[in-house]
Amino acid sequence: MSGPERLSLNQETLKQWSLPELAEGCARAGVAGVGLWRAPVQEYGVEAAAKLMRAAGLTVTSLCRGGFLTAADPGEWAAALADNRRAVEEAATLGTDTLVLVSGGLPPGSRDLAAARARVGEALGELAPYAREYGVRLAIEPLHPMFAADRCVVSTLAQALELAAPFDPARVGVVVDTYHLWWDDTVAARIAQAGEEGRIAAFQLADWVTPLPAGVLLGRGQLGDGCVDLRRFREQVDAAGYTGAIEVEIFNPALWARDGAEVLAETVERYRRLVL
Amino acid sequence: MSGPERLSLNQETLKQWSLPELAEGCARAGVAGVGLWRAPVQEYGVEAAAKLMRAAGLTVTSLCRGGFLTAADPGEWAAALADNRRAVEEAATLGTDTLVLVSGGLPPGSRDLAAARARVGEALGELAPYAREYGVRLAIEPLHPMFAADRCVVSTLAQALELAAPFDPARVGVVVDTYHLWWDDTVAARIAQAGEEGRIAAFQLADWVTPLPAGVLLGRGQLGDGCVDLRRFREQVDAAGYTGAIEVEIFNPALWARDGAEVLAETVERYRRLVL
Repeated sequence: MSGPERLSLNQETLKQWSLPELAEGCARAGVAGVGLWRAPVQEYGVEAAAKLMRAAGLTVTSLCRGGFLTAADPGEWAAALADNRRAVEEAATLGTDTLVLVSGGLPPGSRDLAAARARVGEALGELAPYAREYGVRLAIEPLHPMFAADRCVVSTLAQALELAAPFDPARVGVVVDTYHLWWDDTVAARIAQAGEEGRIAAFQLADWVTPLPAGVLLGRGQLGDGCVDLRRFREQVDAAGYTGAIEVEIFNPALWARDGAEVLAETVERYRRLVL
Repeated sequence: MSGPERLSLNQETLKQWSLPELAEGCARAGVAGVGLWRAPVQEYGVEAAAKLMRAAGLTVTSLCRGGFLTAADPGEWAAALADNRRAVEEAATLGTDTLVLVSGGLPPGSRDLAAARARVGEALGELAPYAREYGVRLAIEPLHPMFAADRCVVSTLAQALELAAPFDPARVGVVVDTYHLWWDDTVAARIAQAGEEGRIAAFQLADWVTPLPAGVLLGRGQLGDGCVDLRRFREQVDAAGYTGAIEVEIFNPALWARDGAEVLAETVERYRRLVL
């Protein structure tokens, strides 16, 4: 395949677009799928969003995101579980089997990463049976270690695989995101392991560019603008047996300020040239 | 020991102070040592700086820094080696046996982390004999993975130990810096390994605080202001057999804007309360 048949555009990459604009634009560009986010989908209506994407011939490749399961306070933890059950239902309604989970950071005042990671594991035990009922897979996403304190205590693919290990791979998988994992010299071995275990639930692309902006969240680069060897990642993920969507997820205000169709065309061109 | 007998203040923590102010302030506070930086030492005069610290009764616990050994261009690589030889000489003149090496990032346009890391290993082979001549130890410092592209392709203690492995531990060691390593769930095992191998050359402290500032370099937190379990690190390093200096290295403009003596007193108090 030399075209965008496996390409999915995560909605946040084209934040300037409404859901109807996203559906129309992606369908016109021949893109296979979209990754959606809960807040804009809820605002539009979950059923309506599902219908919109189906009508445009687009697959919803993932829903972002559940997670934030590290609260030490029992009430907050229970509320997070309830919210994640709703996310599972929304994923099912949207027709995607992939709910991306970002674990959450350290609770306020805590210095105990291991305990926070253990609570994520406990939460997976609560959520996995619910996900099975709905035909949804929980996809643990390791985020770059620079987010360990405030966003995601799962920093490596090794940790994500360890958390996933007790569960059926059809119910709990992992996300391979180039932005978060590119620096790790053990990642090739862990991608191979994830493939053997049948746990690669999603493959996401963004490039690493410096300098990082304040807060570091919105510093992801367009494919090819940074230093990640994207093709090598894609080859590794393919070699591990992954045949699913390749989702571009870039949070970058400079892309959001441009015309959506232009950004999409550029992304498709970069994808063909640098990923395939 | 319940006092600051092992405490060393890295000069960059108190950047508002001249070298004479640093010597006088640290001596008055009963601090055992100082970590120095090449640029201000060169400006003051290397011999003169050595004499100043000796006269104040202070040990120079490290010189920051050599490194930046990842250039793909042969001329640039040779120039970097020459500069590192000068750094070895300066360390010897200052009477410290510890030259901290920050490896350098990816060369412009490169996406090959493994090749860059290999060049660091090759450079160590060139520099280790020179360091031996001068009684200096090259201390490989892993920096947080957020610096992998532009500052340091050595991101974990495991990678630093792997690079150090071919060399005599008395000539090539590693730096354990809480700021860079706190997120890594394998770090306790690697600290133990580093201790067994006799490779812990320096132990540095800073806390992790969010949000990170633009560029992320100057976002280190005062001890206790963030989420790093500093005492646990100190216990692990002690258990690994390390008996050397405990150096506080914080780059933070908010600290630099304050009175140096006040920052130093606060640091000593935090150190007693949160590290010992």
